[in-house]
Amino acid sequence: MAGERYVYRFGAGASSDHVSRELLGNKGSGLVEMTRLSMPVPPGFVISTQACRHYMESGLPAQLETEIHEALRWLEKAMGRDFDDAANPLLVSVRSGAAVSMPGMMDTILNVGLTQSNLAGFAQQGRTMTVALDSYRRLIQMFGSVVLGVPRSTFKEAMDHAHPGHDEADGAQLSDSSLQTLVEDFRAVVLRSTGGPFPDNAREQLRLAVQAVFASWNNERAVYYRSLNGISAHLGTAVVVQAMVMGNSGAESGTGVGFTRDPSLGTRKLFGEFLANAQGEDIVAGTRTPSPLSSLERTMPEVFAELTSTVELLERHYRDVQDFEFTVENRKLFLLQTRSAKRSATAAVRIAVDMANEGLISRKEAVARIAPASVSEILAPQLDFASGTPNPIATGIAASAGAAVGRIVLSSQEAVHAAASPHAEPVILVTGETTADDIHGMAAAAGLLTAHGGATSHAAVVARGMGKCCITGATALTIDLARRTVSAGDVVLRAGDWLSLDGSTGRVFPGKLPLRPAADRNEALETLLQWAEELSAFDVRANADTPQDALRARAMQARGIGLCRTEHMFFAPARLPHMQAMILASNLADRIVALDKLLPIQQRDFEDLFRAMAPYPVTIRLLDPPLHEFLPALSEAEARLSTARRTEEYDAVHHLSAVCERIKSLTEANPMMGHRGCRLSISYPEILEMQVKAILQAALHIAAEGYETVPEIMVPLVAGPEEMSWIRQQIEAAAEQVFAAAGHSILYRIGTMIELPRAAVCAGSLAPYVDFVSFGTNDLTQMTFGFSRDDSSGFLAHYLEKGILKSDPFITIDEAGVGSLIRMALAQIRAENPLIKAGICGEHGGDPASIEFFASLGIDYVSCSPMRIPTAQLAAAQCTLSGRYDDFELPASHLTGVASIQPTPA
Amino acid sequence: MAGERYVYRFGAGASSDHVSRELLGNKGSGLVEMTRLSMPVPPGFVISTQACRHYMESGLPAQLETEIHEALRWLEKAMGRDFDDAANPLLVSVRSGAAVSMPGMMDTILNVGLTQSNLAGFAQQGRTMTVALDSYRRLIQMFGSVVLGVPRSTFKEAMDHAHPGHDEADGAQLSDSSLQTLVEDFRAVVLRSTGGPFPDNAREQLRLAVQAVFASWNNERAVYYRSLNGISAHLGTAVVVQAMVMGNSGAESGTGVGFTRDPSLGTRKLFGEFLANAQGEDIVAGTRTPSPLSSLERTMPEVFAELTSTVELLERHYRDVQDFEFTVENRKLFLLQTRSAKRSATAAVRIAVDMANEGLISRKEAVARIAPASVSEILAPQLDFASGTPNPIATGIAASAGAAVGRIVLSSQEAVHAAASPHAEPVILVTGETTADDIHGMAAAAGLLTAHGGATSHAAVVARGMGKCCITGATALTIDLARRTVSAGDVVLRAGDWLSLDGSTGRVFPGKLPLRPAADRNEALETLLQWAEELSAFDVRANADTPQDALRARAMQARGIGLCRTEHMFFAPARLPHMQAMILASNLADRIVALDKLLPIQQRDFEDLFRAMAPYPVTIRLLDPPLHEFLPALSEAEARLSTARRTEEYDAVHHLSAVCERIKSLTEANPMMGHRGCRLSISYPEILEMQVKAILQAALHIAAEGYETVPEIMVPLVAGPEEMSWIRQQIEAAAEQVFAAAGHSILYRIGTMIELPRAAVCAGSLAPYVDFVSFGTNDLTQMTFGFSRDDSSGFLAHYLEKGILKSDPFITIDEAGVGSLIRMALAQIRAENPLIKAGICGEHGGDPASIEFFASLGIDYVSCSPMRIPTAQLAAAQCTLSGRYDDFELPASHLTGVASIQPTPA
Repeated sequence: MAGERYVYRFGAGASSDHVSRELLGNKGSGLVEMTRLSMPVPPGFVISTQACRHYMESGLPAQLETEIHEALRWLEKAMGRDFDDAANPLLVSVRSGAAVSMPGMMDTILNVGLTQSNLAGFAQQGRTMTVALDSYRRLIQMFGSVVLGVPRSTFKEAMDHAHPGHDEADGAQLSDSSLQTLVEDFRAVVLRSTGGPFPDNAREQLRLAVQAVFASWNNERAVYYRSLNGISAHLGTAVVVQAMVMGNSGAESGTGVGFTRDPSLGTRKLFGEFLANAQGEDIVAGTRTPSPLSSLERTMPEVFAELTSTVELLERHYRDVQDFEFTVENRKLFLLQTRSAKRSATAAVRIAVDMANEGLISRKEAVARIAPASVSEILAPQLDFASGTPNPIATGIAASAGAAVGRIVLSSQEAVHAAASPHAEPVILVTGETTADDIHGMAAAAGLLTAHGGATSHAAVVARGMGKCCITGATALTIDLARRTVSAGDVVLRAGDWLSLDGSTGRVFPGKLPLRPAADRNEALETLLQWAEELSAFDVRANADTPQDALRARAMQARGIGLCRTEHMFFAPARLPHMQAMILASNLADRIVALDKLLPIQQRDFEDLFRAMAPYPVTIRLLDPPLHEFLPALSEAEARLSTARRTEEYDAVHHLSAVCERIKSLTEANPMMGHRGCRLSISYPEILEMQVKAILQAALHIAAEGYETVPEIMVPLVAGPEEMSWIRQQIEAAAEQVFAAAGHSILYRIGTMIELPRAAVCAGSLAPYVDFVSFGTNDLTQMTFGFSRDDSSGFLAHYLEKGILKSDPFITIDEAGVGSLIRMALAQIRAENPLIKAGICGEHGGDPASIEFFASLGIDYVSCSPMRIPTAQLAAAQCTLSGRYDDFELPASHLTGVASIQPTPA
Repeated sequence: MAGERYVYRFGAGASSDHVSRELLGNKGSGLVEMTRLSMPVPPGFVISTQACRHYMESGLPAQLETEIHEALRWLEKAMGRDFDDAANPLLVSVRSGAAVSMPGMMDTILNVGLTQSNLAGFAQQGRTMTVALDSYRRLIQMFGSVVLGVPRSTFKEAMDHAHPGHDEADGAQLSDSSLQTLVEDFRAVVLRSTGGPFPDNAREQLRLAVQAVFASWNNERAVYYRSLNGISAHLGTAVVVQAMVMGNSGAESGTGVGFTRDPSLGTRKLFGEFLANAQGEDIVAGTRTPSPLSSLERTMPEVFAELTSTVELLERHYRDVQDFEFTVENRKLFLLQTRSAKRSATAAVRIAVDMANEGLISRKEAVARIAPASVSEILAPQLDFASGTPNPIATGIAASAGAAVGRIVLSSQEAVHAAASPHAEPVILVTGETTADDIHGMAAAAGLLTAHGGATSHAAVVARGMGKCCITGATALTIDLARRTVSAGDVVLRAGDWLSLDGSTGRVFPGKLPLRPAADRNEALETLLQWAEELSAFDVRANADTPQDALRARAMQARGIGLCRTEHMFFAPARLPHMQAMILASNLADRIVALDKLLPIQQRDFEDLFRAMAPYPVTIRLLDPPLHEFLPALSEAEARLSTARRTEEYDAVHHLSAVCERIKSLTEANPMMGHRGCRLSISYPEILEMQVKAILQAALHIAAEGYETVPEIMVPLVAGPEEMSWIRQQIEAAAEQVFAAAGHSILYRIGTMIELPRAAVCAGSLAPYVDFVSFGTNDLTQMTFGFSRDDSSGFLAHYLEKGILKSDPFITIDEAGVGSLIRMALAQIRAENPLIKAGICGEHGGDPASIEFFASLGIDYVSCSPMRIPTAQLAAAQCTLSGRYDDFELPASHLTGVASIQPTPA
């Protein structure tokens, strides 16, 4: 197309228009921006993503060669060097740079332009022949593998053969004659592998390098990364061609990467690494362990000062933490890249809160910046050292926080394979270093441990992105792939052995350590959640069964308990026998005796819960699971019975016979649709009566202590008004007894879970019998799809694989089906009585995409497990901020939380 | 209320207005009508149901005594006798008579007006002292038990004591002095039991008798009968007071009951019984075995002729079979009652068809007269004599057709108790005779056998009403309640032994005989169903898996197969191994080998089915059940494995190990919501491909034979458009292969069962992928309520007991919930594409109340098991006739049955 422009220049006085990131890519855009800020950036030009798209559709655009040629002429002039001049050659880097950062996924070639014939000329540009030979060796190696497809290992073998014990990144340490031989060996490798000589022509090198970078957009790991991160395949990458500065020019040169704040913890201090006498690839690949960035302050203080002020400016300019790359050539600083830094969730929260407190961003922006799902990682489990801290076998760099316990695997393939096995146990991928090719294995592993590399190595960056525990640079480790061992000192572990990683301290422990929940408090997170809570149009509540859970939830700004599962209280060893006696009772009188023992226990539980959550409402669900869950498995009971028979313990025989009979009579073909939920209340109203009394007596008791509370009694698995009206009568009758005995009454509410399709369809006729409803989206999804929660993972995998379903409906709410039922039910309920509160208490209550949907229905609250409250809190605030909350007209009492029902005191 | 009238006179020239049956009751209304037709009816008057309602609310109306007094004066004048005249007394009967016939449920008192003082005067009215004494004895007995509450057994004991061996109905056979003693004994019984003398005043007798009849409206058995038959408790009964005619006046007197056609088979001939020298109660109670009505032709031909012409006139007048009662007093005929006869379903159908053919009623009326649910009884099982007919131990009267096999119980209480036990087995109630008090026991028993009584005894009438097999008058039986035995000749059976009844022939067999389905053809039924089919606005199809079922269904006018469950074809012993090999295949290739063996077998099945049903559509459902159903139970496989290990059959060990593993891997916690239905097609598309090829190759094959067929491929358990679009593609791809190979194509349709709530909610978006839908109401009910079909009977019993649900939603469709989903789905589908056919194929498709609901939605067809087709056919016709079918606008092609889809030939 005439007039279309593919090449954009930057630096050296080029008039850099403000061109979009979409066109220039992240890297190119950053470089242009830095030149506009007059920062030290080697000049160069960007070939736009548009050219890449053209290349992918129909090859290189015709005019591109001309544009590149002209840009090159400009660059030659700016640098005072010439691409074709053997005496004073120009060298360039050719780097990929997509609009969305895909770190390490695509290719880069440095030193493009070096040839046999201009080596000497290059050396004479104030450099040594050593630098020239090392740079040429690097070019052959990089160009050979990236552009010509020579396996990397071939170069490594040639190097090992010529210089056993030398690492490939250490080439600069070799003598000139050794380097000369290595160059010859590498050229021979290329000739042998490709059948042709290494292209010793600068322009040919550039042309091929640009095409190779374009092509790398579609390499296997880039495609996988995009699918993992939901990046469109049609964007294409830009190519940055930039004058080389040589970090491998000796001790006063080097290359570094850094972050303006700690990307793991979020602390406000310059963070990064520097590798002297090296080129950028050395540090990113993790093949040599670099020094901390602070070492530069000692060795080259003026460079460090310039770097510090420059990147601080960058952070203020972009109003976000920057991840930057730079090179020092003979004490002169050049910035080569800046971008918004990837960071751990912990860091993201800390940074957002700090920046808001610093006035750099608003509180709204702080809340809006955090991906809701990411914060759950902050609450990920930690190693539990309660019973003593064992000796670590090694300590590396705490590259990505959290903890991981798993069996050792030694390759990505093994990790993938292990994760796919039917009874998968977690695995830890232990390796020298990771490359971009390891991305599948990293995704499959529970944690990563590398012997080499720093906090900014590939493994570290990717692991942080994945929210996965990672320790890098554990140099004490020796990995023997042949023997399949990992050793440190005299400790030898084998593949398959258990290993425990503490990603917060970098310590590596042998064996399987216990895990404990994350630290109870995270100040920055709590601050952020408080802001989120204030910004939300609807509440987040907790699904909590214990006072501990309730307190943890309150710290994260939960505004009540949306679901307390009373049955969890019955499983404690001291209580289970009473529960079992109740179930085994053959008549009402015996059942009531057992229930009378349970009542004070339940009441105390509820008192603790009400105290922990006062003054916010606590929703208590009546007994829900089928009774057989409280009895042992039949096989176990039968084994005990047969033992008792052998040992002639006749009392036990009698009891266990009864237990076995009862288990058999309670066995169901489809227990999920069996005798559970409110069906228990209908068959055994005395259980309901006990629970209602325990709830209301507890509420009266703590009210007397001066706590405020509004108990909400929730009836599970209601199919329609027929059951609800009957049960409401039972509840009110029990309440009247309690209030009559106490001499006064208390506010309480009666509601139901809508978790059966029929309850949703009949919601309008349910309305007269409820003060609130809570959608139990787990069971509602189960019944609406007819997908058993216990059995569907097998065939759901086929559905997701074949693209029949886009997501697992047990994770993200199915808007078309389950969502329609919820919408319909809400409309019916509001038409009957707009005072009825409606919440969500399934797992979907903690899923951001689902919360967005619920917000669009104008729900009053979502309730989720304490671990997921931060996610829900942020999602709720973000929905509100983005105007996605359906702000239907609320009656005044709705907002003040006044109970809509005043029970009549007896 | 002034002007209100409670008493209506009939006969003897009373001007009988046409007063409603609601006011006069069935009996009163019949008597009035007969006097209008100038038939011989003793005069009398009716106390209206209005008086009864007044009595129930606030006691007897004030003016009633006056009205009765006046009516009595009129009656005395008409009869020329006087209630208070000891020399020429008037006797009346006092009988109950509700608007809805409740045979035997309420009370009757005869001979009211007889006293010690007018006995001689009564005898002198052309009668003997014997008749007078016997009548007085009867009055004391009936009045004593009904009005005064003296236990019946007390009179029986007194009788047994005075005249051992004499039955109480045989009183007329005693000498006058014996009768005189008996009268004294009975009066003593009354005095002893009630503490007062027998009321020897005619007017007092009448007053108390009227009140007793009113009160009997609320006796326990009447209340139960009304609840069983859905009769309102507020209607009340009328009381008929009528001049007595004395059937106990000697050999030329007697009493009889009869039917204008055979109430058991429907044959057009006078049918009934006559008992000489007896009163009406004797014959109804079944205490004496009467002679056939035809005997009267011999003994009193002129009476018989008059009776015949009178009741024929009644039948023509009422345009229905009449059940009549009459008395002959000294060769003079009196009709005492006429009403529409209760009849067996077989008889009802035969009579309706005959009457329509005779021109007495229209075909529409014939169809409208049959209660749809009743006809299933015609197809009830019969005893199977295929392996020889054993010797009956007794033969009685074939009082109610069908067969019953069960354990002997000897009282109603035992029957009720046995039916309520958890593992209830069927029971046969064996008793001397039944009384109205036995109604609970009769309802609980599978069949009834009485030693006494005829085809019109209480047991016979009630059993026919219940559609229950009954044999009466098996006089060879001796029932010994003390020893708990039933004996006939030298055969002695004990309570709890098995017994088999053949209700069609009256034969009683010891032991447990096999049952077989009813006779294949019933000509009258087929005729009626043909009329019904012609009158219906929508079709009835069959759920049929075999050609035999299909042929049976066609005979009953089924217009296609709505559901063929293909899996039933795989369970045959010759096929199961291939199915199992398919399931055990560890890879696709092995699975295809097994499927290739199944394909020709399935194809032949489908060919047979298509031939049997041509030209009507056949809907074939793809494989539905979870695969584990085709494998043995785990315990069985493990037992076989352990045997193989012991016997060292290593091939078997290897195979059985694999079987056990596969069974374990297929085990699901909730199989109803597990890997079944279309989920199998998605996981194993090769199964679907095999079935589609078998269906279409079969259709092509029989088309080549000249048969018309439209195969409909139905995909089960679809949750929404996501699955349906994917599966439709698979089906069309397989179809293209078949058509390409054959060189031509055939019409076929693709559809789905809507049996998951999500499919109903998303029906609009499903519409583009289907040509028809069929609501699988069994699973839809299961998932909508979350009531497991396998497990819910236990707690559903509590729901029905507590009145929380009015009916079992698996029997009658739940209109509020499941029905709403169906309505919603239909509206969505029709909005998208009005050409899509919609049917019902769950059990509800054969339930009349459900069919009425489906009709109101304008459904295209219902499909049900062959046994239920007659019911469905009649219900469909009746809905149409009553205008309850939602006749939404049908597109033309819908009516002609043209396929809406023409697959593209490859």
